[in-house]
Formats: sequence, C-alpha cells, structure tokens
Amino acid sequence: MAQMRAFQSAREKGAEIPEVVCFEKQSDWGGLWNYSWRTGLDEYGDPVHGSMYRYLWSNGPKECLEFADYTFEQHFGRPIASYPPRAVLFDYIKGRVEKAGVKDWVRFGTAVRMVRYQKDRKMFEVTVHDRPNDRMYTEEFDHVVVATGHFSTPNVPEFKGFATFNGRILHAHDFRDAREFTNKDVLIIGRSYSAEDIGSQCWKYGAKSITSSYRSKPMGFHFPDNWEEKPLLTEVDGNTAKFKDGTTKHIDAIILCTGYLHHYPFLEDDLRLRSENRLWPLNLWKGVVWETNPQLFYIGAQDQFYTFNMFDAQAWFARDVMMGRVSLPSADAMREDSLSWRKREESLETDEDMIVFQGENVKELINTTDYPPFDVDGVNRTFLEWEHHKHENIMGYRNLGFKSLMTGTLAPAHHTPWAEALDDSLESYLQTVREAAE
Amino acid sequence: MAQMRAFQSAREKGAEIPEVVCFEKQSDWGGLWNYSWRTGLDEYGDPVHGSMYRYLWSNGPKECLEFADYTFEQHFGRPIASYPPRAVLFDYIKGRVEKAGVKDWVRFGTAVRMVRYQKDRKMFEVTVHDRPNDRMYTEEFDHVVVATGHFSTPNVPEFKGFATFNGRILHAHDFRDAREFTNKDVLIIGRSYSAEDIGSQCWKYGAKSITSSYRSKPMGFHFPDNWEEKPLLTEVDGNTAKFKDGTTKHIDAIILCTGYLHHYPFLEDDLRLRSENRLWPLNLWKGVVWETNPQLFYIGAQDQFYTFNMFDAQAWFARDVMMGRVSLPSADAMREDSLSWRKREESLETDEDMIVFQGENVKELINTTDYPPFDVDGVNRTFLEWEHHKHENIMGYRNLGFKSLMTGTLAPAHHTPWAEALDDSLESYLQTVREAAE
Repeated sequence: MAQMRAFQSAREKGAEIPEVVCFEKQSDWGGLWNYSWRTGLDEYGDPVHGSMYRYLWSNGPKECLEFADYTFEQHFGRPIASYPPRAVLFDYIKGRVEKAGVKDWVRFGTAVRMVRYQKDRKMFEVTVHDRPNDRMYTEEFDHVVVATGHFSTPNVPEFKGFATFNGRILHAHDFRDAREFTNKDVLIIGRSYSAEDIGSQCWKYGAKSITSSYRSKPMGFHFPDNWEEKPLLTEVDGNTAKFKDGTTKHIDAIILCTGYLHHYPFLEDDLRLRSENRLWPLNLWKGVVWETNPQLFYIGAQDQFYTFNMFDAQAWFARDVMMGRVSLPSADAMREDSLSWRKREESLETDEDMIVFQGENVKELINTTDYPPFDVDGVNRTFLEWEHHKHENIMGYRNLGFKSLMTGTLAPAHHTPWAEALDDSLESYLQTVREAAE
Repeated sequence: MAQMRAFQSAREKGAEIPEVVCFEKQSDWGGLWNYSWRTGLDEYGDPVHGSMYRYLWSNGPKECLEFADYTFEQHFGRPIASYPPRAVLFDYIKGRVEKAGVKDWVRFGTAVRMVRYQKDRKMFEVTVHDRPNDRMYTEEFDHVVVATGHFSTPNVPEFKGFATFNGRILHAHDFRDAREFTNKDVLIIGRSYSAEDIGSQCWKYGAKSITSSYRSKPMGFHFPDNWEEKPLLTEVDGNTAKFKDGTTKHIDAIILCTGYLHHYPFLEDDLRLRSENRLWPLNLWKGVVWETNPQLFYIGAQDQFYTFNMFDAQAWFARDVMMGRVSLPSADAMREDSLSWRKREESLETDEDMIVFQGENVKELINTTDYPPFDVDGVNRTFLEWEHHKHENIMGYRNLGFKSLMTGTLAPAHHTPWAEALDDSLESYLQTVREAAE
C-alpha cells in the first residue's frame, strides 16, 4: 500500500509513473491488518497471511506510526486515543489508499508462485496463480518490490514431549480468540512482543494462569499475580511442563511466541533475502535496494520499532530509485555503506540505541525523497516514553496518550481502560470520539 | 513409496530401470502416516503435509489394504488384529521399502516449487527447494509422477459468525489430540469419514457432547447418548450454534470435517489435475496417466476405498508405461475409455457399487502388470462386511477381525476393545501378538 501510494503521489504532482501491478494473495488489501479467523491454510490451500488475533490493540502508540501525508485526525475527522484496536488501524491505512484511488492496480486472490530474473533481457519473469480461476500465468516486469513482510511464517521450535502433549500446541501466528484459554493454565514460550501481548490477552480474558518461559532473560514487567516468568522449557510430559531451573508446572496449552521466519519461497536463490529478524539485514542498500540486483526492492524487511511511516520512507525511496531520481552508487559502494550500518547495528545495546538507529535510517530516506518531513526525534522520544509506561504498568500503559508529531494534537483518553474494554470493534472504539464531539 | 518399490521390483527381476529421484518435503518418508504434532506450517514455513491425529486407528480393515507383495504377517512375523493404530501401519509401509533398499533415491527436506514441461525437448523442468540448505535448483526429467495425495490441503468453508466465535475453529487437518476437547461441547461439521472418526475420538477421550452437522443426510450410526446429529449449521453467535431446523446448541469448539482440496500449486496449468474428491477424476487414463501429456502420472488421485494395494497397482502400471511395457493408445482413445469409466461412476448409487467399481479398476491394472494377483472380489466382500459392522456398532466395529486375502490367516482379536484402548503406540498394540506367541 505504501509503494502504491508513493507512485500515486508522484503522479499527483505531475510525474509520469510506470505501470504498477500489485499481486495480493488475499481478497482484500491491508496485509496483516486484514483479520482472518482462518489458521494454517486459506480457502485456496495457501498459507494464511494473517498473524493477528481478536482483541488485538496496537502495542505501540499510534503517534509513532502515523503517516506524514495522512494523519489520524484527517482520517477520523477528530483526535482519537493512542492505542487503537486492529480494526481502527486497518480502517486508517485503507483510508489513505482508497483516497488515492489505486485499488485497481491490485490483482486480488493472486499468489506469486515464482520470480526469476532473465539476465539477457534484464527483466523479471513473474509467475502468479489466479486462485479463484485456478489459472497460472507469467508476466514480465522491470522492477519487483517484495512487500510481503516477515511476520507471517512462524518459527516453530520443537521441545521434548511435544508429540505426546495432551493439549493444544500453537504458534502465535495461529492464535485467534483468547477466550479459548479461559480457565486454562497457559504456557507461553518467548519473551518478546508476541509473548507479552498474547499473555496479556489470555490474562484479560480469564486464563487461570500464565507462565511465560524465556531463553535469555525475563521480560521483567510487573505482571499480575497469576503470571509467572520461568526459564526455558526443557520438556513436557503429559500435562506437566519442566523448566531449566528444575521446577515443574501443570499446563493445558502451549503458545509458541517464538518469532517469525523470512520466507520467500517464490524468489530464486539470487534474489532471496536470508536473514534472521534484525535491524540491519545485509545486502539491502539503505535497507531497501537489493545490492546485487538493484531492480529488486524489499519494503519492511527489518525488525521494526518504526512501521507505517518507515515503510513509507522506504517506498518513496524505492520509487525514486526506479524513476531515476536517486542514482545508484556502485555495488561495492552500496555494500560498504551497508556494512557500516551493520557495524553500528552490532554495537547497539539498549532499546533507546535501537530506536535512534532506526530513526537515523528513516531520516536519511526521507531527506532523499519528497516524503513530508516529520519530527523523527520526537517519535524517538515517544517510543522511549512508551517503554517507561510499560515498565510502570504493563496492563495499564495503553490508557495513556501522546501528542501527534504530525499535528501537535494530544490524544484524548479512551472511554474504557484497556483491561476492561472487552469489545475491540471500530464502532466501540470511536464512541469516545463521537461522545467527545457531541 | 509404491512407485519406488515398483521400479525396484522390476530391477530385482533383471530389468534395466531408469534413474528414479523422489522429492520429499518431509524429513522422513511415509506421507500422511508420518505423524507430526505440527499444524499449519512446518519448521521451514511450508504447509504441514500430515492430517493424522494422535490415537488414530485404521478405520478400515487392514485386510483391505494389505500389499500383495509384502504381507502383514511377513512384516510382523505373526498375525495381528484387523484395525491397527497409525504407528503400526506406518511401520508396515516403511518395512517394505526399507527392505527394498530404495531410501537413497529420496531427497528429503526438498519441496517441489514448480514443474514446467519443455515442449521442444519433451522434458520436465522441475524446480525444487532444498529447505535445510535454503537452496533452489532445477533438474530435468523424462517423466513426473505426482504422488502427493489429496488429503493434505483442507477445504475450509466459512459460516456466518465464524469471525467472532468465542473458541477454537479448526479443520480436521489440524486436529491432533482429542484430549484438548475433554469436557467440551464439540461441534463437528461434516458427515464423512473424518466427521465419524474425529467425533469418535472426542467421545472416547471424554468430550462432554458431540454434535455433528450434515448437509445432505445424517450418518445414521447408533451413536452414544451424548452424540447428536443435526442438519447444517446456519450460523454461530458467540458460543451458540444455530441449525437449519431452527434448533440451537451451546458449543465450545468447531471442527470442520469438510474434506480436502486437490492442490498442486507446483504444476503449471496444462499439467494440473482439477477435480473434486471423486472416484473417477477426468483426464487420467486408467486413473493414472495424464491423457494430454502421458509423460505425467498421478498416483492415488481418486477418492478411495482401496488404498495401499491400489496405489501399488497404479504404480506398477505407471512404471510399465514409462518402461514401454504398456503401449499407449491415442489421446482420443484414452479419453474415450476414461469417459466410459466416468459414465459408470456417475451411475453408482450404493457404497457396494462404488467398492466394486474401484475393484474393477484395480483388477484391470493388476492384470496388465506383474503385480502379484490377489482376490479383489474377496477384498470387496471384506469392505461390505466392514460396513455392516459399522452400522451394527460404530464404537465397536474395530474389535472384530477378518481373514487376510493374501495369506488366508484370520486376524486375532486385539487385547483391549478400541473404546478402552487409550494407548495407541506400536509397543502396546503388538503386545497381543507377543503374548499370543509366548
């Protein structure tokens, strides 16, 4: 969506833009934000893209992800609170591209099966599968932008005893409705955002107990009394979990919050990014351009503090490379530049370091393009305040609000504290706003 | 496995055979019989092949699927009971190919990404993904045999209210441990083998109630008191299911036993079988040879009463076509032959009709090849007796035994009735046999 908006924005300003085709496997746009109750494989037998669950609210302030060219206030017509549920963010990101009128660039229900670079013609041969009509066809393109993200293919480790565990074992990717775990003893493996948020969902919707198991170190939040942090699981035996410290616990279900894989089975070897989830994957100049073949681009391939507005910065940058507005240095120079970023990335220690690092990259991309400049340092500061709020009150941080870095407006408080707000619909969320406006 | 055994059998008898390469996505052979606790996507991000669950026992007598060239008695060294659990059948089918010594023909952990026919060279270009090494490569083959089966990609319909149901919704493909549903009110959608057997598993492992919902007609078995058959679900509202007859029921979980899709996303259009699950898909001469390009074969593409020994008959036949032992009629003649089978298939009414029909096809294939002939009429009769047993006692039919059509031996009774046998391991199952032999 960011890439299409980038091109449409250039056209709006009078530029001649190339033909843009977007292949989208799902029947609607919005990627992860397009919720599906399905898990595993979709109605055509392809992997379900969505990793989101019911009752998901943003776990970071909306002020950190706001588009610089389309604010929340512009979309909703009034200020809204800082941690919107999924449906509200989905509405927001759709709003911009609907306004841009680019939906007819998208071929929905179309999965990309294979992308091969034709060296002789310097073109990509893209084979796609029109799933409703069960028809495969191949077209050629000058440039390819990989914008599938990397939070859809679960990383699923095995622990001893899994094959005979007497309950459900699932990855965060397949988590949908926390009420399934009401009155259950839930074991969560992991210590990152999924672990923290899915554990919180289970707590909110009445799990009997939460046990979260970490490999490196505990999350260290002030969790409710029925939430315990344990070192890594060593095995399960029937319904008993055993941990590295020798303790055991009864569990009914296991949720693996063990991250995601970069997975591009439709890209041939020379085009395929291979990386763990980190802030600076190699081979991407400025985090965007495939160095060994700069006709190829990746959007959002990094681990992310910054999201929507970083994707924008990347998409505007990719657009400008494709349109010849940004000239490419030599492959060696790109490589050297990337390695210097990687070197910095490896020296980062705190979350603050990482946020500032990613902000630097965003600044550089924005300064190179005509994306509306915004207060990146202000976003960094908002991220840091958010982290403090979480450490003060992990079940309450979403009740606080921030000032928009785009409009300066302070977000109003939501009408119901997060822990008590059981209805995550757009209608329910916007009630505050409507009431405030009445 | 059948196809490899077919070639190895020819070589054993002195024939010169082509080079055989088997690409297998999983890390071991056995297909569906190779149990995995995983659901959705596997450790490399590809769809999980397995649809089997813990505690699965064969739902048909082993005497109907016995290999003619490798009997159960030969494998286990003594007679065993008629309805073995999964692990026992897995052991049996592995035993034959281990003995044949063909494991080094298999490239494990290798998913096929794309198969294209090169008209000029009359060869298939097969692109595969070596997943442990994350390396794609392409090789050429004279013939391709599609032996992926069609019980791995779930057919998942949507019903009103699914997006807001307060519990787990899963397809039979993702069903693993029935104990997850102990004390739960389970709704099953479907009326075929998965519905019957997964419902029975849930009953056996203590579900509070089973409700199975049919589209066309009830299964009509004498189910236990806490199992009710209902017409089709119309919608769910929170935890309430509503049915076509206007009745409602509280449910905690929904299991979609709604069948599987033929799914071959790695085959280009001209090579891809498109069919619902039925006894005579079109475009396959004798049920095996792709009529418009007879260098391509499908094994097990039919709906199945016959299984292992039918796959054998097909594999021997495919082998003989590839080795020039069976000569191909014209495309028109193949088409005409297929259409006559299809016409017969469309007139079939009872299960008996269908069993005899599939038996006829098996007979024809066997008679054309050197697969050891066996008493197909006897297998048909065994199938019919099995159906009677099921209608007499759906929770008890597995306690009965049949005579092997290959050896004439009558199967001993199992040491524990199925409904009370909670341990489905190979070791537990074979205890009878060991005790009997002592």
